[in-house]
Parts: sequence; structure tokens; C-alpha cells
Amino acid sequence: MWWHETSWPTIDALPKDRPVVIPLGACEQHGRHLPVFVDTIQVTAIAEQVERRLAEQVIVTPTFWLGSSHHHLDFPGTVSVRPTLYTQVIQDVARSILRAGFRRLFFLNGHGGNEVPGAQALADLVATDDLADAAHLTFASWWQVGGQSLKADRHDMASPQITHACEYETSMMLFLRPDLVQQQLAQDVELVLDKQWCVTGGVKVFRRFHRLTDTGNMGSPSTASSEKGQSICNAVVDDIVAFLESFAGWPDLPAQGPVRQGGQ
Amino acid sequence: MWWHETSWPTIDALPKDRPVVIPLGACEQHGRHLPVFVDTIQVTAIAEQVERRLAEQVIVTPTFWLGSSHHHLDFPGTVSVRPTLYTQVIQDVARSILRAGFRRLFFLNGHGGNEVPGAQALADLVATDDLADAAHLTFASWWQVGGQSLKADRHDMASPQITHACEYETSMMLFLRPDLVQQQLAQDVELVLDKQWCVTGGVKVFRRFHRLTDTGNMGSPSTASSEKGQSICNAVVDDIVAFLESFAGWPDLPAQGPVRQGGQ
Amino acid sequence: MWWHETSWPTIDALPKDRPVVIPLGACEQHGRHLPVFVDTIQVTAIAEQVERRLAEQVIVTPTFWLGSSHHHLDFPGTVSVRPTLYTQVIQDVARSILRAGFRRLFFLNGHGGNEVPGAQALADLVATDDLADAAHLTFASWWQVGGQSLKADRHDMASPQITHACEYETSMMLFLRPDLVQQQLAQDVELVLDKQWCVTGGVKVFRRFHRLTDTGNMGSPSTASSEKGQSICNAVVDDIVAFLESFAGWPDLPAQGPVRQGGQ
Amino acid sequence: MWWHETSWPTIDALPKDRPVVIPLGACEQHGRHLPVFVDTIQVTAIAEQVERRLAEQVIVTPTFWLGSSHHHLDFPGTVSVRPTLYTQVIQDVARSILRAGFRRLFFLNGHGGNEVPGAQALADLVATDDLADAAHLTFASWWQVGGQSLKADRHDMASPQITHACEYETSMMLFLRPDLVQQQLAQDVELVLDKQWCVTGGVKVFRRFHRLTDTGNMGSPSTASSEKGQSICNAVVDDIVAFLESFAGWPDLPAQGPVRQGGQ
Amino acid sequence: MWWHETSWPTIDALPKDRPVVIPLGACEQHGRHLPVFVDTIQVTAIAEQVERRLAEQVIVTPTFWLGSSHHHLDFPGTVSVRPTLYTQVIQDVARSILRAGFRRLFFLNGHGGNEVPGAQALADLVATDDLADAAHLTFASWWQVGGQSLKADRHDMASPQITHACEYETSMMLFLRPDLVQQQLAQDVELVLDKQWCVTGGVKVFRRFHRLTDTGNMGSPSTASSEKGQSICNAVVDDIVAFLESFAGWPDLPAQGPVRQGGQ
Amino acid sequence: MWWHETSWPTIDALPKDRPVVIPLGACEQHGRHLPVFVDTIQVTAIAEQVERRLAEQVIVTPTFWLGSSHHHLDFPGTVSVRPTLYTQVIQDVARSILRAGFRRLFFLNGHGGNEVPGAQALADLVATDDLADAAHLTFASWWQVGGQSLKADRHDMASPQITHACEYETSMMLFLRPDLVQQQLAQDVELVLDKQWCVTGGVKVFRRFHRLTDTGNMGSPSTASSEKGQSICNAVVDDIVAFLESFAGWPDLPAQGPVRQGGQ
Repeated sequence: MWWHETSWPTIDALPKDRPVVIPLGACEQHGRHLPVFVDTIQVTAIAEQVERRLAEQVIVTPTFWLGSSHHHLDFPGTVSVRPTLYTQVIQDVARSILRAGFRRLFFLNGHGGNEVPGAQALADLVATDDLADAAHLTFASWWQVGGQSLKADRHDMASPQITHACEYETSMMLFLRPDLVQQQLAQDVELVLDKQWCVTGGVKVFRRFHRLTDTGNMGSPSTASSEKGQSICNAVVDDIVAFLESFAGWPDLPAQGPVRQGGQ
Repeated sequence: MWWHETSWPTIDALPKDRPVVIPLGACEQHGRHLPVFVDTIQVTAIAEQVERRLAEQVIVTPTFWLGSSHHHLDFPGTVSVRPTLYTQVIQDVARSILRAGFRRLFFLNGHGGNEVPGAQALADLVATDDLADAAHLTFASWWQVGGQSLKADRHDMASPQITHACEYETSMMLFLRPDLVQQQLAQDVELVLDKQWCVTGGVKVFRRFHRLTDTGNMGSPSTASSEKGQSICNAVVDDIVAFLESFAGWPDLPAQGPVRQGGQ
Repeated sequence: MWWHETSWPTIDALPKDRPVVIPLGACEQHGRHLPVFVDTIQVTAIAEQVERRLAEQVIVTPTFWLGSSHHHLDFPGTVSVRPTLYTQVIQDVARSILRAGFRRLFFLNGHGGNEVPGAQALADLVATDDLADAAHLTFASWWQVGGQSLKADRHDMASPQITHACEYETSMMLFLRPDLVQQQLAQDVELVLDKQWCVTGGVKVFRRFHRLTDTGNMGSPSTASSEKGQSICNAVVDDIVAFLESFAGWPDLPAQGPVRQGGQ
Repeated sequence: MWWHETSWPTIDALPKDRPVVIPLGACEQHGRHLPVFVDTIQVTAIAEQVERRLAEQVIVTPTFWLGSSHHHLDFPGTVSVRPTLYTQVIQDVARSILRAGFRRLFFLNGHGGNEVPGAQALADLVATDDLADAAHLTFASWWQVGGQSLKADRHDMASPQITHACEYETSMMLFLRPDLVQQQLAQDVELVLDKQWCVTGGVKVFRRFHRLTDTGNMGSPSTASSEKGQSICNAVVDDIVAFLESFAGWPDLPAQGPVRQGGQ
Repeated sequence: MWWHETSWPTIDALPKDRPVVIPLGACEQHGRHLPVFVDTIQVTAIAEQVERRLAEQVIVTPTFWLGSSHHHLDFPGTVSVRPTLYTQVIQDVARSILRAGFRRLFFLNGHGGNEVPGAQALADLVATDDLADAAHLTFASWWQVGGQSLKADRHDMASPQITHACEYETSMMLFLRPDLVQQQLAQDVELVLDKQWCVTGGVKVFRRFHRLTDTGNMGSPSTASSEKGQSICNAVVDDIVAFLESFAGWPDLPAQGPVRQGGQ
Repeated sequence: MWWHETSWPTIDALPKDRPVVIPLGACEQHGRHLPVFVDTIQVTAIAEQVERRLAEQVIVTPTFWLGSSHHHLDFPGTVSVRPTLYTQVIQDVARSILRAGFRRLFFLNGHGGNEVPGAQALADLVATDDLADAAHLTFASWWQVGGQSLKADRHDMASPQITHACEYETSMMLFLRPDLVQQQLAQDVELVLDKQWCVTGGVKVFRRFHRLTDTGNMGSPSTASSEKGQSICNAVVDDIVAFLESFAGWPDLPAQGPVRQGGQ
């Protein structure tokens, strides 16, 4: 069911161990060939499928489309809150839902730039808020939930992984909103970062996109197709549905460890 | 045109004196008979009409549905950021649009609780940011733009003014999304605040809604009708279109006054 | 009685439903003919009259003269805290008074720039603080309390409304502190903002004063007189006294609505 | 001259190397026998004398009466901003005066609790603001300026040093505002802190006053007299006048050291 | 070379493309058998080896031992700054080094809880600071740099991966500081989190440790040995040395993309 | 004993009235002849002696080497957090130790720039935190604890007081780490600040060091010797040991004063 189409007494009457799904998008440049709302369009389409298949088991809020994309701000069209502010917003959203009594939250993320500030929000919240400490707070980007849904060979992909406005995202858009794709403008762009350490290895680098690409995108959008997009969508929705069915049954975790000596 | 359905090179190529309209909504309790998304549904419907009539003259962003409704948080279903945080978010949104080069911003607000933190955002921004100082930053709630569109006698209204989940808002919803209205649950609620000083006069009071109503709404929703809702919508859209046509032609205001002695 | 001339045991012994009045001023440029302390001089004079007439019924604090006037900072002499900081200061002032046990607070404002950050302070406070939730927090600028005290024809005014260092404010100063007025330097200044939408209508614009006037003032100070100033003062004091007599008797508002599911 | 009784063009025309004096007070409990405005009354009286003697050489702002007295908040009547907020306020005050072009600021403090947050404000400001880096920012409590004005034997004092609502402060009040002193309620209170380490030595302790005294005061107010108060006032004003005459002639300090490698 | 054993003129004279390594530790509970300084001891030992092998090629700062471990605060001995504060601290550290002119920073992290706030720090910094935008900012935990150094079969490990006070960490401590290990108190603890989604998959969960373990540790410390610890240390140091040799030669990345329309 | 070499159950079992000593250092330029870690090396050496002499009576944490030295940032090598951030860090450190149950904290400071933000931290904490209100929070720089340990004639000093990278600090370094001193580069530097008011008197000035010295140091390092350094160290350690023996026995201070009217 949809959170936002419901009245407060109806929400008040729901069982409070039902998972609440909060889709997170962005409004940021996606190369010369895609609209700036790609991340929001994708995660919203996925959330709609999930809501349809689990209408009685989960509650889905509207997609929060304002993401943290400051590393894209050099490209016009990007609308963004800086990471430290995004963190605070996600905390207030989580607090609102916890205060309504719910105890299982799943942030379904659709934009890479939201991952760190979203995790920061929940790490800080659980450390300082007793309602959060007693709840299950979870967060995943849709391409990572079970870890297998985007394997390149499942979808006949030319490129090994999702990057930005690439074969994967362009395929999704060709499937979901072909009217918004200007495929004739798509350009393939080589990754300029060190592959050994930053892709295969675990070294994180922090660069604004205007240092990495002049078109705004990466990867091989020229190889995209609507069929690949449909294949991805189906796999991802299956993955998320399976996770949410598991999540709904996770046991509560009582506090153990030493008795606390005082407040926080 | 829609900001979010556009690619960055297209936005980059637009004339920068074109007004950008940013609709602001909320997700908050609206009594026992209306869904929590009333404010967002209303302002989005208005924004869609405005975009249709001024497609070549203005750019409209998606509705920012997360509002500042902390005074409603005692009622489940409300999702809110506190006022001081809402202020910061609006500032980053404005900065993103200013940085893309635009100089005429109109925040089209759909929720009373956004008015103070939204004004705070723009007052603080213009005082401390040189791009903002050189721009036209405007903000209005849709029921106040020209000041005349909601006059009670224009729409055959039983109650003198819009309050919360009242005759006006319920009429709008009966027109826009009758499937989400449980009109049989609508209750009329008397205002408990001092009318002489707080309604006729200019004394502002600050109270959470759980001190003012047990249903969550105010006013006379029982007298609502779809026809009244349609009449309001038409009047409001006409009003906003007229404003935006005027706004597009406002002259730039050069700096005068004493020469500044240094930075800020 | 005056808050600040009292010892703590005396304040401790007062009935806690007695209204506490907190006058708010500013220190900001007021054109070429008036001193920078106009707003503080005016509101303090009004507060002194109110204290005299209601000495046994209300407690009045000293005027907080530091206002939020960042939009005037391009003119030397202005001393200001930015809006977001003013908000925090007002919250700590309110918390101090609430903590002393009082439950009826009236911020008597004397500067337009304080309105938004002052309202932000109280909106945020009531949403997050249990003492504030149980209290009556009120705020009004002295020219708006009952909404009628400044009607132009009551005082034989040439201009329809108060703006800045205008006929109204200059008249007040000619009555209160003629020694500080250099009337020969007063200049009449036309409003450059769009009257239809920004004065008659409800569109708020956010501009620093150096974009609006090179003298720093607006309106028609040349038509000011001490008699008009006295007339205004009398009307305003009557208005505020009437409000406070009403305010002292407002009933408490118990919490209703749904039972809260947890802390905030 | 007084900053606040002046118009902006007059301030604009002043020589910018003239010292600006900003008196800082407080509104906090001062025992059972003194009003809560002691600190403000004292520092204001001193500032008035200084302004009279140096009318052509310095500019004096109104006393900022809101201090940081959170350690006194357990006693009603105290109105306070917490230390971290006081710091921000002092920074905005300093920025306002620097921006008007002045380069010699003297914060004349009248409340011990302002010392740390005031110093924090200026330390942080000078480290991050180029106008501040080029200016002379100074801060002193009136009892410490030259270090000699309050020597006990100069004023025939029974107690060795000023504490809180003690012989010194009570004497000042008996001289300045005897109508506000209830001397019959004055109680002498022993210091409970470790004298060797915390008074003679340099160990700072941080305690709220409700742990230190039940009356709210310390020291020996019973030995106070108006004569002692007058003697203190005279000595302090002489001291501050001498400092300001020196301060007005301090040489500018150009930047030396290594060339900076980039912005801050 | 060591940053902290050097004078400012020496640092000033160094080539500014030399990598600066900043080791990050923590002080947090590590089960019943290990001291609270495990993370700092480990990362410092690694940093010392790295400094020895690359003395002429990199500069190493002292280990910043205060980490973000609020999820461990229910266990005494943990000293921590909350995540949002850790972020700000790392930003000021990075700004200090950038301002000294260096352009290649590597944060060598030794505590899992630092990863998100550390990444948040650098993501936010690069988005808002021009010196950071032009620099190479990198961050990795020592167990992830090249992604291969901790493979279980390289070190004859019984458990598949590093967790907390586990076989891996206990082995490291038995090698580095056996005097601080009380191996007789080591207890093996089963993971209570969902393995399919949270370990194999990509769902992040946010829980305080007192919900996960009563001893404070996880994994199989009983199987630890000094030999395994030495094997890990050697592999990790080799890995980091190889990375730093590569990092020192990364090419600068000039800005491309659209011309910026204004400041940030 | 050392806090960081201990496991959580051991810390949990300690008597909670045992003093916890937290040494505070810095990493900042110390002239042309000393390394940037002077403050940390000195305070750590002192803390180690104290720990040795009071191993059973106090607990000592590792030195927090990151100080607030923004006034030195114009000299490369300085690594610093700004004062307002240092304040927050010290608060989280104090909260961690209070939460573990301890009630006597002594911050043993080794850098002048930490004094104000450290005091700000504890003043603010005690005003707003109930655990802190019930505890003994103390703070002192090592050269000030008892006020007598650094008297010039006790150590045959040529200069009357400690300043920065001066006779005193250079002597300490010649004793503690002569390998890091380049005595041939030491230059004597005259104080440029007004001695009457800023050294003898109580006027605080706030200047960045690049306005005060081009070498980065002050005072007469040319007169330093290892013997003087040893003499200082011995005197200081004796002083601190005596203080801690006293501190361990300070009585608890119960709350008195008026009954609080509500929360904070």
C-alpha cells in the first residue's frame, strides 16, 4: 500500500512490524542523452512494482527525489543538497516514521551519491536515538540488494558493471521512458580512475564529475537496449521482493552487553 | 517545460531570465477523511496546469513533497523535517538553480507550515550570497498569490477562509482525487484560538495541532463539493499564470546605496 | 513590573500564568535623517507605556536591541545577526523564561526583519520542546497586534502604510526623540517593488535594501510630524494593553488527538 | 559618541581607526538581595562614563545585555544563551562592525560567563575571516583591564577579590542603583571550591551555581557600601580610559611569515 | 618521513605532489580479551612499516586515535565522537594539509566505524572546496586497499573474513602486543545478522553492538595465533606500499565539462 | 594505569571516583628550529611521569594530539581543527568518559590554543548535561596547575615566562627529544603586542601568528638548555601529582538552590 494515499487513522491502525519502504532518487545530470530525473524515474518504477506485488505486506512512501549530487553541480540541471544536509533530512524522515510506531524501515536507494550520507544518517541516528536503537534500519541501492541481480551475463551486457548514464541506466530508460532518451547523443566514455585500486581494489576516491568526463556520463550507453532494461527491472524487483519477505520476519534483537551507566 | 524531463545541455542552453517555478508540498495528516498527501496533490495539480499554459515561458521542477509539518507529528502518517532543517534544504535547492545560471525563482508553496521556514531560507540566502543578491527570489502560497483568488463569494463558500482539511481543501480533493476522500468521516471542527487577536488581528500563536483538534482537521469539510474545488483550481491557476507573466518582465535591480567597505 | 529590576526570589514567587512581554528591537540604518536605533527606541517607548498601565498584570523584560537586519548591512551602522542565528537566540530566551515556570509569552516586536526568524524560532521550539508545547507562545509586531491601530485615517496620514524610515517612523521619532532627527535630510523615496503582486498580493520578495533605495529609507518622511507620532503611540499602546488583558485570560489547551507512539 | 544615536551617513564618514567599544552585560540571578540586571547596570554605567570622557575619540554601542549564564539557569530570572550560541552572536556583532570599516574593536565585558564564549568568538573569527585578521580585536572584563583597578586595598575591601553578588558587586549597586538593593536580604557565603588549586592555582572547574550556593551569591555582601562602590567605579573608568587612549594608537601589524599556499 | 617530527620550513620545502598518509584509529571495546586500543595499535604498526619502506616517497602523520564508535558506547572504555562530528574533524585535518600545499592525501583507516563518516567528510569537502576539487583525496581501510591481502587462504584462516575482535584482529594483537591480550577470556560469538542479505548481499543494517553480542566481540578469536597475525601484517604492508607507489604517479585531472555559471 | 591498554570489563570494574586524566596536545609550527609536535611531545612526557607515579590512583588516556591551532595555519605543518569544532570534540570525549561512569575528569592541556575552546566545551556541557552537572570537570594547562611550577627563578630562566617555541619550550625539547631540535636555527623574537595591557594587564588580543612573527616563534630560544628542561619537567610533574592527590578526595557537591521548574 501507499503511505501517502492513506489517512492518519488508517496508518495508525496498521501493524507496526510491517516494513516501510522509502525510495530515494536524485535530480542530476545524466550525460547529453538522458534527462536529469533518471535516478528518480528508475527507483520509482521499481518501487511501484514492489508495491504491486507486496501491497498487503509493506507500505511504500513516495520517492524522495531530492538527492545529494553536489559532485554533479558543475553541470546545469542538477538540484542537490550537500551530503551533510542530506544526512539530516534522512534522519528526520526516519524519525517521523519511527514516531508513528513503525520498527522496520528499508531505504530503497536509487542514486550512488546518497549511499554515504544515507548511511551516515542511520549510523548517527541509531547511536543517539532510543527508538532507532530498538528498530531494524536498513538501506540498500537497488542494484546491490541481494548482490546478484545485475550480474552482466544475466542481461547480456557488454559492460561489466553499472556506472553513470551507462549501458545499464540507458537501457532502463529505454524501457521505462523512451520518450525522454535522445539516444543519438549518447557517447561512450572511458573511465579515467585507476582501475586496479579504485575498481577492483577498495580505495575510495572523491572527485567531482567535471574532472572525470566532459559529457557527464561514463560507460557504454551506445550498447543499451530496451530489452536489457526490462531484464534488469524484472531481476531487481524479484530481488527486492525476496528481501522484503525475509525482512518482514527478522526477529527483534534485545539489548545485551553491560548495563548502561547513565544517559547519553 | 519540465525541468526534470530535460537533459543538462538543454537546460544549459535556455535563456537564464526565464522564471523557474518550484512547487512545495507536504505529507501530513489531514483529518480522518483525507489522505496525508493533500498538500502535494493540490500544488502539483496547480503546477501541472501552469506548466501547460506557460510551457514556453517558464520551467517547472517536480514538487518537493517533503514539508515542514512538525506541529502535526503527533498524528501518525506525517513525514516532516523540522523548520530549521527545511530552511537549509530550500537554500540548497535555490543555490542549485542559481548556480545553473537562472535569476528568477518562484517557490509555489502548497503548505502553510512551509511559509516561515521558506521565507527564512530566502531571507538568509539573499543576505549572505552574491548570486542571490542579484536575483529575483519570490515565494507565495497558492491561495495568496494575487490575494483575490480564494475570496469566499467567488466560489459560493460557506466558510470565510481556508484553514486545514476544511471546506476548501476537501473540495479541491473531491475535484482532483475523489477516490482518496472518505467524505463520510469528515467532521466539522470549531477553531479554538482567539479569533479577535489571532485571526482578525496580527498576533501569531504557535501550537501543535494536538492542542487544537482531536480529528486533525479544522473548518467545515461537510460543506465541500467537487464543483467548489474545480472553481478554486481554475481561479488559482489564472492568478498564478498572471503573476508569472508579470514576473518574467520585472526589471533587474542594480545595487545602489553606499559603497561596501569589505566582504561579508 | 520589570523583569530585570527584580531579584530571583521575587520572580520565583510570582504567579506563573502572568504574561511575560519581551520587546524586540534592532540597530539598523534608517535613512539619512534618522539614527540607527529607531526600532529599539520605538518599541521600548511602547513597552514602557504598557508596563506603566499593566504593572501588576504583566512582567516586561528589557528590549533585546540586537535584531536581524542583514538585508541592511550594506549600510554602515547596522549591527545584525543573520536570520538563522536570530532564531536560535530567541529560542534560548524563550527557554529561559519557560524554565523559570512562566507559560504565557508575548514577543512584542519592533522590526520587520525579526518577524520571520522570530516565527521560525517559536515554530521550531513548540515542535520539539515539551514545555513550549504546553505554553502559550505569541508574537506580534506593534503595528499589527489588533490590526487596526495604524489605519492611515486614524492619524491623518498621507501614506497608506508603514514601510521604513517613512512618514510613520519619522513621526514616531519626532515625538519620542526629536533631538535625534535630522529632518532636513529626509528624502521621499518611491517603492521599486511590484505593487500589484508584492503589496496588494501575497508574493514575498527577498532583496537587500541596497537594491531598493540609495538613501536607505522608503516612503514619505517629509510629511511626518510629532503630532502624528503621538497619535500612533497612543493607539498602539491601547491596542497592546487590550490584547494583554485578553491574553492573560486565555484558557489552557490540553493535548488531544492520537496517543503518541514514542518520543520525539 | 554613541553608535546607536547616529545616522548611517555619519558613521560612514567617521575615521575608521577610531576604537569601537561594545559593552557586554547579562541578566542573571545575583543572590537574594540584588536584581538580575546587576552585570548590565554596572557595565553600562562604566561605559557611560567612558563615553563622556572620550566622546570624540571612541564610539560606544549600546550594552548587549543578553549574556551567557546557563550555569545560573537553575535560579529563575536568569535569561541566557548557551555558550556556543553566545560565541556565534558575538561573531556576527564583530562582523557587522568590521564590515562598516572599523578596525579597532574593544569588547568591554561585564559578566564572567561571557569571557570564554567571547574569547572563543574572536579566536575563531580571526582564524577564518580576512577582515578580522587585519584588525585589532580586543576583549576584557572591566575588573581586569589594567589588572590593578580592583586591588582590595585601594578600596578598603574586606574580601580579596570580586566573585558574585559579593562585597564588590553589592557596593557597586549601592552606589549606582540603591533603590534596587535589598541589603537586609544579603547573606555571606563561603566558597566551596578548592582554594589552593582553583583560586591560587590555575585549575579551572566547571560547575553550575546550584552546586555552589543556595542563595545564588558568594562572598561577603554584608560588608558592602556605596563609598566602596564609587571608589571602584572611578578606578575602573580611569583604567579603561587609559587603555583606550593607548589602543587608539596601536600600530597596524602587517602579515609576515610564509606565503600562503592557498585559501582557507 | 614523519610529518610531526619535522619543522615547518622543512615541510614547506617538500615537493607538494608527495603523498601524505593519515592513519586513523579508534578507542573502543574489543571484547573481553583485547584492550580498547586495538584499532589504533594495528593501524599504527602498519603505518610505521609503510613509513620505513617509503621514507623518501611519502609523509606520514601521527595516527588520529579518536574514532567514531558510538555504536560501541554501551560498553565502557569506548571513547568516541559521533559520526557527524567525525566528518567535520576529518575535513579540518584535510583542509590543514591541503592548505600546506599538498595535493595527494591518503587516509589509511583502521576502524570500520570511520568509513562512512570519513567518506562523508571527503565527499562533502570535494563538493564545496576548490583546493579539494583540484586534489587527489583517497581513503581505504587497511584490510581493503587492494582487495586481496586478507583472503582467508593466504593466512590459513578458519573464518572467511574479518569482523570485530575476531580471529584476524586477535592474531594481529598476538603478534603486535601479546602482553595486552588475555586470550583465556576470548569467546567465539555467532553473527546474529541475516547472512544472505547483509553479508553476501548489499543490505546495510545499522545496529548498536549491545544488540549483537554480550561480550562485545564477534567471530572466532579462539583460533587466533601470532603467526597468522604476522602473515596478515606482511601482506597488508606490501599491499599499501604498492598502492602508494602507484598513487604517487597518478596524473592530475583537469576540469572539463560545462563552464560554471557562477560561484557555489 | 593506561585507559587504552585495558579491556572494557576491566574499566567497567574500576571504582568510578578515580580521576581520569586526558592529555591534550597539538600539531603546530614551533619556529624554524623545533618540530611541529612539540606540544604533544611535552604533555605526553609529563603524562607518562604522572601515570608512573600514580598508577593505582588515576587512569590516563592517550594524548589527543589534534589541537586547535588555526592561528598558526599560515605556517605549513600545522594540523588543526577550528576552535568551535575543538569544543564539540572535547564534549564528546567527556561524554564518553562520563557515560562509562567516571565522575572526576582532568583535562591536562599542553597547548595554549586549546584553553578557550576546551573551557567552552566544559562550560557548555555542564550547563546542558545532567551527568556533567553531577561530576567534577577540571581543566588546566601543565604550566599553570598550581601556579608556581614555572616561576623563572626556580629554573634559572633568562625570560620571565613561557610563550611559544621559546626558552622554556626549547629547553623541554632539548631534554626530551634533542634529536628533533635544530638549535642552530633558533632565533630570538621580540614580542610585538602591547606589554602593559596585554601581558601585565588583562586585555586579550586575538591575532594570527603571521602578524606577530616571521619565524613562527617568540621569546629567547637561544638561551635554552637541557638542564632547564629537566628542571621544568620535574617541577611540573610534582605539581600535577599533588593536584591529582587532592582532586581524588574532593567531596561531591549536592544540588542546592531553588527547585527547578522544569526540564531544560
